[in-house]
Amino acid sequence: MAKNIKKRSDDYAQWYLDVIKAAKLADHSPVRGCMVIRPEGFAIWEAIQRDLDRRFKATGHVNAYFPLLIPQSFLTKEAQHVEGFALECAVVTHSKLEKDGEGKLRPASPIEEPLIIRPTSETIIGHMYSEWVQSYRDLPLLINQWCNVMRWEMRTRLFLRTSEFLWQEGHTAHETEAEAQEETLKMLDVYADFAENVLAVPVVRGAKTDSEKFPGAVTTYCIEGLMQDGKALQMGTSHNLGQNFSKAFEIKFLGRTQQQEFAWTTSWGVSTRLIGAVIMAHSDDEGLVLPPRVAPDVVAIVPIFKTPEDEAKVRGFVDKLVAALTGDASAAKTAHHGLERYVYNTANEQRILADFRDARPGDKQYHWEQRGVPFRIEVGPRDVDGGAFVLKSRIGGTKEIIKLEDLQPGWLKARLDAAHDALFQKAVAYREANTRDAATYDELKEIIKGQGGFVRCFFKPDRAAEAKIKEQTKATVRCIPFAQPGTSGKCIYSGEETTTQVLFAQAY
Amino acid sequence: MAKNIKKRSDDYAQWYLDVIKAAKLADHSPVRGCMVIRPEGFAIWEAIQRDLDRRFKATGHVNAYFPLLIPQSFLTKEAQHVEGFALECAVVTHSKLEKDGEGKLRPASPIEEPLIIRPTSETIIGHMYSEWVQSYRDLPLLINQWCNVMRWEMRTRLFLRTSEFLWQEGHTAHETEAEAQEETLKMLDVYADFAENVLAVPVVRGAKTDSEKFPGAVTTYCIEGLMQDGKALQMGTSHNLGQNFSKAFEIKFLGRTQQQEFAWTTSWGVSTRLIGAVIMAHSDDEGLVLPPRVAPDVVAIVPIFKTPEDEAKVRGFVDKLVAALTGDASAAKTAHHGLERYVYNTANEQRILADFRDARPGDKQYHWEQRGVPFRIEVGPRDVDGGAFVLKSRIGGTKEIIKLEDLQPGWLKARLDAAHDALFQKAVAYREANTRDAATYDELKEIIKGQGGFVRCFFKPDRAAEAKIKEQTKATVRCIPFAQPGTSGKCIYSGEETTTQVLFAQAY
Repeated sequence: MAKNIKKRSDDYAQWYLDVIKAAKLADHSPVRGCMVIRPEGFAIWEAIQRDLDRRFKATGHVNAYFPLLIPQSFLTKEAQHVEGFALECAVVTHSKLEKDGEGKLRPASPIEEPLIIRPTSETIIGHMYSEWVQSYRDLPLLINQWCNVMRWEMRTRLFLRTSEFLWQEGHTAHETEAEAQEETLKMLDVYADFAENVLAVPVVRGAKTDSEKFPGAVTTYCIEGLMQDGKALQMGTSHNLGQNFSKAFEIKFLGRTQQQEFAWTTSWGVSTRLIGAVIMAHSDDEGLVLPPRVAPDVVAIVPIFKTPEDEAKVRGFVDKLVAALTGDASAAKTAHHGLERYVYNTANEQRILADFRDARPGDKQYHWEQRGVPFRIEVGPRDVDGGAFVLKSRIGGTKEIIKLEDLQPGWLKARLDAAHDALFQKAVAYREANTRDAATYDELKEIIKGQGGFVRCFFKPDRAAEAKIKEQTKATVRCIPFAQPGTSGKCIYSGEETTTQVLFAQAY
Repeated sequence: MAKNIKKRSDDYAQWYLDVIKAAKLADHSPVRGCMVIRPEGFAIWEAIQRDLDRRFKATGHVNAYFPLLIPQSFLTKEAQHVEGFALECAVVTHSKLEKDGEGKLRPASPIEEPLIIRPTSETIIGHMYSEWVQSYRDLPLLINQWCNVMRWEMRTRLFLRTSEFLWQEGHTAHETEAEAQEETLKMLDVYADFAENVLAVPVVRGAKTDSEKFPGAVTTYCIEGLMQDGKALQMGTSHNLGQNFSKAFEIKFLGRTQQQEFAWTTSWGVSTRLIGAVIMAHSDDEGLVLPPRVAPDVVAIVPIFKTPEDEAKVRGFVDKLVAALTGDASAAKTAHHGLERYVYNTANEQRILADFRDARPGDKQYHWEQRGVPFRIEVGPRDVDGGAFVLKSRIGGTKEIIKLEDLQPGWLKARLDAAHDALFQKAVAYREANTRDAATYDELKEIIKGQGGFVRCFFKPDRAAEAKIKEQTKATVRCIPFAQPGTSGKCIYSGEETTTQVLFAQAY
């Protein structure tokens, strides 16, 4: 039992913070609502970035960088957009600090028009696209940006909701409505595939109702995951913006028929919130559990020895073990503070580590367990004699004795893949068990108040009804899943017959 | 002659902007002093990031992320630091926008303490390190951050000086003064090696004088390059911060002798300014010239055909050519707008492109020439018959006929390496020819007024003298080079005997 981590069943919110603290993933900062992503947490973000960036480029996108600051007037050009973001933005009003009479600093040199720190970049990018797009030959324009954004959140939670966060935002412009729609759905698929095949978090793909869509979008699509406390987490969104922003920012082009036309645009994004999803979907009462494909360290080797003779013996075995696991007798190595790291997978910067720090083996085991390393290996003098070692799996908690000679090329990859599959299947099973049908509003209320999870029901999307349900249950329509039953039923709220089935849940 | 690009000899400043515009590297933005880095420019930054990030990690550093906003009070804790940065920072004073009586937006909800957008992060990172460092066992702490920073510059120039820019900032804390000094110099060497062996820009390593050092540093070291107009460019700095910031932010630890000690810290950074250096050091009157090791596209193949028969013939040859150049008959490919790109070097994301757009071959040649692609290859039906092609080198401007059968594995890499060497040697020769000795202040003035470049002379660093010289000549001490003559001479300004030789130059 981890003493520094609350049990999920006792206090889920505190458990989440304890897991983050024990694994040193992030810290609160002196600036309200902003977090510090510590090296251990940032390495997960780098793994996420590397993988997604490859997927974006493989689908024809390129990266660029647009300014952090946006003129206040830009925000007002799209009516829904300003309503959505004006109430929570950091406003820059001055361009220097000066000392007052008492030597204290104060803002000076007010700037002409206030600037806001980007909460998202549709406006500034829309402005630039209006300059870059002249002809249908300039389309499609497929650009992504990795950056920081800021929304002045009142209630914050590390990774899940912070005033400043890191994300990527794709912004594309197309010649036709159909192409924009195709792009919107293609990127949603990229996100869903990444969530399931890399993060091992099963997601539901669907559309948002009008009251939950992005301010300025025609349609917002999303992927929704289910966390271990029965709350949903929106893990990524993809917006078909129609011509809303192209009309607001004059993104016009000379079409094939020599007519001036407005472009059709999309935007899509995922953020450091995904790290919160990874923690909440997989971790347990012992601490962090990392999905094998984003774990910076995939194996932690803990040597056990007391005498110099035993140390030499164990060291020799560890060297053989590393060579067998990496498939490379001279794998690139770094050593820092007694921690040796060997390159296992260059493309993903994944490593195998050997913990030769001056500490007790039990403490080391515990250390790597709390940090979610998929596999731990103990090697003592007796293991060396037997030509075998103990393999502990963080996923499933199994212990096995493995013979060194059995480590064929590809052994570790196969093990990591199997661990990924097990983690994913466990999460799928949890979601299946926590997706319940409701035929009436009372049933919905009872489920939400009781076990939580997803509530599947017929519902006719309606702003007023959704507001009322949210007020009464704190649950919202997470999405209208793409997978619909093809039958009809009574709307749980209005009683009207409808073919629309939705998923309700409380959400982060 | 490029019609859209001024000649360097006519108007160097305009030439620089024209090269950027022709290659679509960046744009001015609607926010004063902030730039938009376009995809073509951002790809160069990505190449720079990838290479440097590998070097930082190989020297034991890890990445993390700290908040964008810094409490105003943090700035005042280190006396020199506040003097250096308070006069040019973006100040956040409000947390939302609201509509006034006329429906116009205005800042609302003033925040308690103004926040500034980081101009650099020593203060916020110092605060966090004070929490993280407790014992000598926590040291060294070796962290790097890739991020955006903001300094409200009055006179801006794309890449070289912009209000917002992208950079990396390394921040380390050490147990001893000697270790901090070793780190400071190690990272300067990383920068110098990168500048010369990747960007092909020769640099002088040295120390800054007191009047030019980083606000809060004990010593600032730098690498200085020389641009084609005879002005110097500071391309990277590495600061030994002594205990200045550890005392200001209480970064204390229990030492080996059970005493509380202040840590010794360093910081070091390079920025998107390096893209400016690449442009200014290598490009010519025809446009951009990219150093081969950061060029996203290393070869541009331009097919020439008129009839469908010729197209098929040329297409077949291009396929063989790509296979020979990449060494991979099934190299990963993307196609967008008629541009086909084949992976040449996965680790550096470098590609070979084949331009099958519907445009004239001459226009395509010109297009890739202005974008600085190291090699262009023409392939027409007659080339196919002869089993050879014309290779044009952007570096040196040579034309050669190459037989397809001569493309052995490693041929392209050898060619790119040779092109890198040629580019570097050309820049070295330029610098040598433009480094002049001055024995008197009059000689210095004459050289600066005339040819420009580096002026090498004996000089006793002195704030008042440096201010006067800057006022009269616009030249500053770029650095006190590590390579000193070991003799002494008269200070060009005071006439005193000194062993210190410095380099003066006008600088960006």
